[in-house]
Amino acid sequence: MENRSCSRRAKNARRIIYLDNAATTLPKPTGVANAVKRAVECFAANPGRGAHALSQSSARELYEARKTAACFFGADEPEKVIFTPGCTYSINFVLKGILRTGDHVVISDLEHNAVVRPLHTLEKYGVTVTRAHVCENDPEQTVRNFCRAVRRNTRLVFCTHASNVSGIRLPIEDIGDMCARLGIPFGVDAAQSAGVLPLSLAGQKVDYICVPAHKGLYGAAGTGALIMREEKIIGTVIEGGTGSASSLSTQPEEYPDRLESGTLNIPGITAMRAGIEFVNRCGAENIARHEYALICRAYDGLRSINGVKLYTMRPERESHVPLLPFNIGDLASEECSQMLSDEGIAVRAGYHCAYDAHLSLGTAGRGAVRICPSVFTSGEDIDSFIAAVKKITQKS
Amino acid sequence: MENRSCSRRAKNARRIIYLDNAATTLPKPTGVANAVKRAVECFAANPGRGAHALSQSSARELYEARKTAACFFGADEPEKVIFTPGCTYSINFVLKGILRTGDHVVISDLEHNAVVRPLHTLEKYGVTVTRAHVCENDPEQTVRNFCRAVRRNTRLVFCTHASNVSGIRLPIEDIGDMCARLGIPFGVDAAQSAGVLPLSLAGQKVDYICVPAHKGLYGAAGTGALIMREEKIIGTVIEGGTGSASSLSTQPEEYPDRLESGTLNIPGITAMRAGIEFVNRCGAENIARHEYALICRAYDGLRSINGVKLYTMRPERESHVPLLPFNIGDLASEECSQMLSDEGIAVRAGYHCAYDAHLSLGTAGRGAVRICPSVFTSGEDIDSFIAAVKKITQKS
Repeated sequence: MENRSCSRRAKNARRIIYLDNAATTLPKPTGVANAVKRAVECFAANPGRGAHALSQSSARELYEARKTAACFFGADEPEKVIFTPGCTYSINFVLKGILRTGDHVVISDLEHNAVVRPLHTLEKYGVTVTRAHVCENDPEQTVRNFCRAVRRNTRLVFCTHASNVSGIRLPIEDIGDMCARLGIPFGVDAAQSAGVLPLSLAGQKVDYICVPAHKGLYGAAGTGALIMREEKIIGTVIEGGTGSASSLSTQPEEYPDRLESGTLNIPGITAMRAGIEFVNRCGAENIARHEYALICRAYDGLRSINGVKLYTMRPERESHVPLLPFNIGDLASEECSQMLSDEGIAVRAGYHCAYDAHLSLGTAGRGAVRICPSVFTSGEDIDSFIAAVKKITQKS
Repeated sequence: MENRSCSRRAKNARRIIYLDNAATTLPKPTGVANAVKRAVECFAANPGRGAHALSQSSARELYEARKTAACFFGADEPEKVIFTPGCTYSINFVLKGILRTGDHVVISDLEHNAVVRPLHTLEKYGVTVTRAHVCENDPEQTVRNFCRAVRRNTRLVFCTHASNVSGIRLPIEDIGDMCARLGIPFGVDAAQSAGVLPLSLAGQKVDYICVPAHKGLYGAAGTGALIMREEKIIGTVIEGGTGSASSLSTQPEEYPDRLESGTLNIPGITAMRAGIEFVNRCGAENIARHEYALICRAYDGLRSINGVKLYTMRPERESHVPLLPFNIGDLASEECSQMLSDEGIAVRAGYHCAYDAHLSLGTAGRGAVRICPSVFTSGEDIDSFIAAVKKITQKS
């Protein structure tokens, strides 16, 4: 399996055990780094802005990347894939493209600041927000909470596919069914799930999928996508040159141009394509199986150590993505991550840009340490991590 | 001189004479492609979002890039450099960050759609816009036109440093002086000038400089910067996680975090740093001298051909950036660029996302063919281009 050989190669190259894959996956597949370089060398011409062969070759590369992403996320045509500068931008584009004064939106109580902060801005313009409580072990209750939150003026339901803090997975299939029944557009922040959990416009009743390239899709930072079902024209957040309808002072109505202003990040988009192709070759199902086995191994190891505080149930595929928050004794989470760093283990502490999720988890006081494996993580990496945690608990 | 050897290497590698450098410079310096690859391999960890060594090494790389850009554009501290997904985003951030209902803004009549289209959106929210006419050979009159356009409620003056269609340079020094005298913030779209014309917060009275990485700075597409003088807190267009003040549902007030939401494009930013370092090594003054000599050679060559229509004066450093629009006989500009492409010459036709500039130039009917050299363009490239134009005029 390709991931095994990549994993070996990557392990030889580094001395640090990297478990901060929820922030960004690391290392990247060799093909991704090569794709970025190749793009700068071969596809640097501006696509769609010239008739010459170099521009056309960039445009072809762009189209192939669009097709790859459309296929991966079940969009019926490549034009439904909008390339963005990242998942945060995709989310801003959806929220601000749809919500207007007087509108109401339902979100969960586990959202990232990429959702919370744009909505805080929109609240100043008369948008109202209701947070539905997510129940870790009761998806039916979660859906009921979403359903109860809906009002007559609810214009959008938007939630994360899985919390970036606790890994808790939301029942987006059932929430999507509810939204379809009520005729309310439904958007999903797939920052922590894309590439790991099945997610598709064809398979689920989701209207807007927001993804980063640099996490489970193994691309580079600075690129993301918004994959959309709707034909509807949504508002724009950023306007500019699109290489199309240049004589109009308004943004064109056609997708993807409408939401893709300025010269596109071809190196990043090429890397995203290489990343998705890597995931396809490994098999998302194989990656998921590998990562769930590792996170359970970590969970079981941590549970056996006195002084380690765990906050979630044992991660199962039905209820969680493979990531895990914890703390040690009374240590501040940052202190703990520093001690792990001293032991050669890379993790992330604090609030992970998602304070709401910490409020829900009961970790608003000190945040939490978070670990997340990738396809390149091995069982031995997890064992070394557990040994390091043991060492810290014995010291503290 | 480094550019000479790069030019030779680049020329050997390609069969197309690329004169579409106003859209994006091509080829890129070898160091830029290598920097992007190295960033994906070595600086892929999320900067500022973890205590571990890999995150810190990304953060250091980011800081070095910020210092390089700050130094290049005369910002007094690295934090005044905001990395953005491109010049279009930088411009949107300035216009929408500053202008509110009831405000008035003065722009030129040569602006790109990156300025025209966001302002069209803002007009719907009660912002008013006045276009000051730019006089090609009379900078004093241009400044007077800007001055006359100012009103009591003028909250911003914003203009391009040089037209991306005609190359006409705006007297931003004098416009900046006027703005400073009137206490009005002044922003400049440096898409066509950064890396070629001197431009600095220290040298000119400019408050906001918007730049792309992928043109005269020889970086990759998908990255840009906003370099700002003001300490003032401007509004945000995109909000999200910043890795700072995570418990706040509002965007932090501190720069650069305030305007940098989501995971940054470290590969693109690393490429931008490599590009600026390349320009520094070549010497912006040497690059400019090289490009002005070439564009004058092209101008003189085109002027000697019957049936070629030129629209500007002979490009001089004081009045133009080194780019040139033209047409051949009655040919549609797109047809002409296609014929040049068939001759192995890459140029761009149409409206160049700046219809206003074509209205001003008198080319709104059919657009224009545009050529622009880079540091990698040679005199022989220009001669081949002239020969190709001659051939086309003889055929048509």
